[in-house]
Amino acid sequence: MTAISPLAPARFPDMPPVPGVRLAAAGAELRYTGRPDLLLATFAPETTVAGTLTRSHTAAPPVHWCRALLGEGGGGARGLVVNAGNANAATGEQGDAAVRRTAESAAALVGCRAEEVYVSSTGVIGEQLPVDRLVAALPGLHDGLSDRAWPEAARAIMTTDTYPKGATASAEIDGVPVVVNGIAKGSGMIAPNMGTMLAYVFTDANLSAAALRPLVRRGVNRSFNAITVDGDTSTNDTCLLFATGAARHRRIGRAGDSRLESFRAALEAVLTDLARQIVRDGEGAAKLVAITVRGAASEAAARKLGLAIANSPLVKTAIAGEDPNWGRIVAVVGRAGVAFDQARLSIWLGADRAAANGVADPAFDEPAAARHMKGQEVEIAVEIGSGPGAATVWTCDLTHGYIEINADYRS
Amino acid sequence: MTAISPLAPARFPDMPPVPGVRLAAAGAELRYTGRPDLLLATFAPETTVAGTLTRSHTAAPPVHWCRALLGEGGGGARGLVVNAGNANAATGEQGDAAVRRTAESAAALVGCRAEEVYVSSTGVIGEQLPVDRLVAALPGLHDGLSDRAWPEAARAIMTTDTYPKGATASAEIDGVPVVVNGIAKGSGMIAPNMGTMLAYVFTDANLSAAALRPLVRRGVNRSFNAITVDGDTSTNDTCLLFATGAARHRRIGRAGDSRLESFRAALEAVLTDLARQIVRDGEGAAKLVAITVRGAASEAAARKLGLAIANSPLVKTAIAGEDPNWGRIVAVVGRAGVAFDQARLSIWLGADRAAANGVADPAFDEPAAARHMKGQEVEIAVEIGSGPGAATVWTCDLTHGYIEINADYRS
Repeated sequence: MTAISPLAPARFPDMPPVPGVRLAAAGAELRYTGRPDLLLATFAPETTVAGTLTRSHTAAPPVHWCRALLGEGGGGARGLVVNAGNANAATGEQGDAAVRRTAESAAALVGCRAEEVYVSSTGVIGEQLPVDRLVAALPGLHDGLSDRAWPEAARAIMTTDTYPKGATASAEIDGVPVVVNGIAKGSGMIAPNMGTMLAYVFTDANLSAAALRPLVRRGVNRSFNAITVDGDTSTNDTCLLFATGAARHRRIGRAGDSRLESFRAALEAVLTDLARQIVRDGEGAAKLVAITVRGAASEAAARKLGLAIANSPLVKTAIAGEDPNWGRIVAVVGRAGVAFDQARLSIWLGADRAAANGVADPAFDEPAAARHMKGQEVEIAVEIGSGPGAATVWTCDLTHGYIEINADYRS
Repeated sequence: MTAISPLAPARFPDMPPVPGVRLAAAGAELRYTGRPDLLLATFAPETTVAGTLTRSHTAAPPVHWCRALLGEGGGGARGLVVNAGNANAATGEQGDAAVRRTAESAAALVGCRAEEVYVSSTGVIGEQLPVDRLVAALPGLHDGLSDRAWPEAARAIMTTDTYPKGATASAEIDGVPVVVNGIAKGSGMIAPNMGTMLAYVFTDANLSAAALRPLVRRGVNRSFNAITVDGDTSTNDTCLLFATGAARHRRIGRAGDSRLESFRAALEAVLTDLARQIVRDGEGAAKLVAITVRGAASEAAARKLGLAIANSPLVKTAIAGEDPNWGRIVAVVGRAGVAFDQARLSIWLGADRAAANGVADPAFDEPAAARHMKGQEVEIAVEIGSGPGAATVWTCDLTHGYIEINADYRS
């Protein structure tokens, strides 16, 4: 559809199997033809799950389904079905029925209850899901399950993404090695509000659902909730973490357990890697932008300011134009709804301080800042005082590519 | 700089004199060369004033100056100086001194106190105002004051505007005819939060400052606070209403006075006309979009939803692409932070209902909606329930033109 993002990683990572997880992808022609658009994953018995879902008031039927399952307290999962091309959103009761039929069909193949099968959809909103074609494709997928199909899985969930997104890390729990693999999709309609896209993380660690939940929440806040492409939170945002328990350490029941230190770091690394890959594939993106805000009263205030800058069309077009126009940043931090003393405002573009004490820094090396902005990775730092709150958020620039992709995606 | 917006009115309106108001415009080469960039207006003694100013925490020195003057309670005005090309924002104490010197210089010419001279600036943020050149140009302006220079005045305050904006209306107070003239500028960095741009309205009505204040507040809420181009509220947004009192009716001291009915309507007509002209000149705009939300719990909730739709890059690019993609509207109303029952959601594109009861309307005439979207004026209506709250907001589409203008405005 479009050329691969210039910010794409050089290659898909080499992802090892996760004991207890098998995957398959295929083309079910739900919208696209000639490419995979359906993913089935199955999990060993005793697999636990936790996740975050969009807060949208027009959340899609598959999100309602997952929310109900996550809320049941059991926290067990045996299967996952994800389709691309049709979001099954704004589809009402017919959409709910399509989700149930999908889960029941997968459950019959796996040999589990429908309520152990998680379902996600992504794509166009407002059209009924062609569930007959989806269900007809499941037996073939089930026959083809493998523990190696990570690139195929990542590719099957893409919509306007220009490359598949995967990340992997390893950790130790109680001396036992465990794997953390993740795949994600997302390119437009990306804004921080819980999940903000589709992401699935798989591990063989042996953790209770109660232990998983805070780990996901904390990880998502610092990764997917700290990115934005266009400020548009979707109806289908989902992030799920599945833990098969195949690793031979004793089950851990609390997120705060000190034996999870290495695992927490690995999980956060995978989530942050995936989140940044989504920004790198932001529709039309030519530059990855990291915005750090310091000196705020709280981390939340710092993130609010950072996201206001990251969502400003005027800042994003200035970055696209490689223009060290720090005055636009002054305007955004002023209107972001966070009070501060303008006389303490400082702004850096790369390593060069453009503003200090609320006005132009007379020592500002504008040519150096302009050179920094010509690179593929742009760093902006803003200091608003001496408070303890700091946060980093990531976004991309706003280019003609975004207009091209979005002015003719559907028609 | 760019071609005139395709949505521009056919011509600048024929604006009569406002007794007690004189104007002059000239080029002071503050940033631009070969075009007027400085406006001086003077007012008869006893002129009253009220206004709204940006709520930005990085408000510019001229905004602080106006806020102090409006807050002094006197509410008298004898002069107004506006420059374009330099916002005198993020300029600190030197910026404050430049405003004071501007006011003092104008006051010496007018023969009044500096505190009776209002000052505004618009343009690039973060550069010191070349106040010497500005002050040097004032005597020439004062010599050239006229009661007819409305088009010149509207042109002198433009930045990225592609056409000058004026509006006029007449009314009667107590049987006496009065005039309401307005000029405004604004094209980018437009989002609703008080003033949202520069606008000046002049009338010969005889009203106390206390009567003017509620009239301005109400009028701005329904006009400038109901438009958005890019969600970026500026550091300099200002709307001021000057009333010279030259009309021969008795002074009116309360906004609620029944004799003001015709005047209120004229004022609101001028403000709404100017606000819509700003949207018509939205950077890169090819279509004017009116979004009406009905059935909300309150007018504020309806406006919040309407502005979320109006600010969504995905909706704005769909409109640019003439794509009746109502699914994107579903996504935005879901994430706008207003709770409602999705099963009661309906969406119209022009006269055609695309969604009813939260799902696609089977009777939706998509070709008719697509034809509507090919026009220059697009209407979207959203109903979310049966509450009494309704509001209309205006925006424009998001096109390649916006990227072009903003990726190379400053450098």
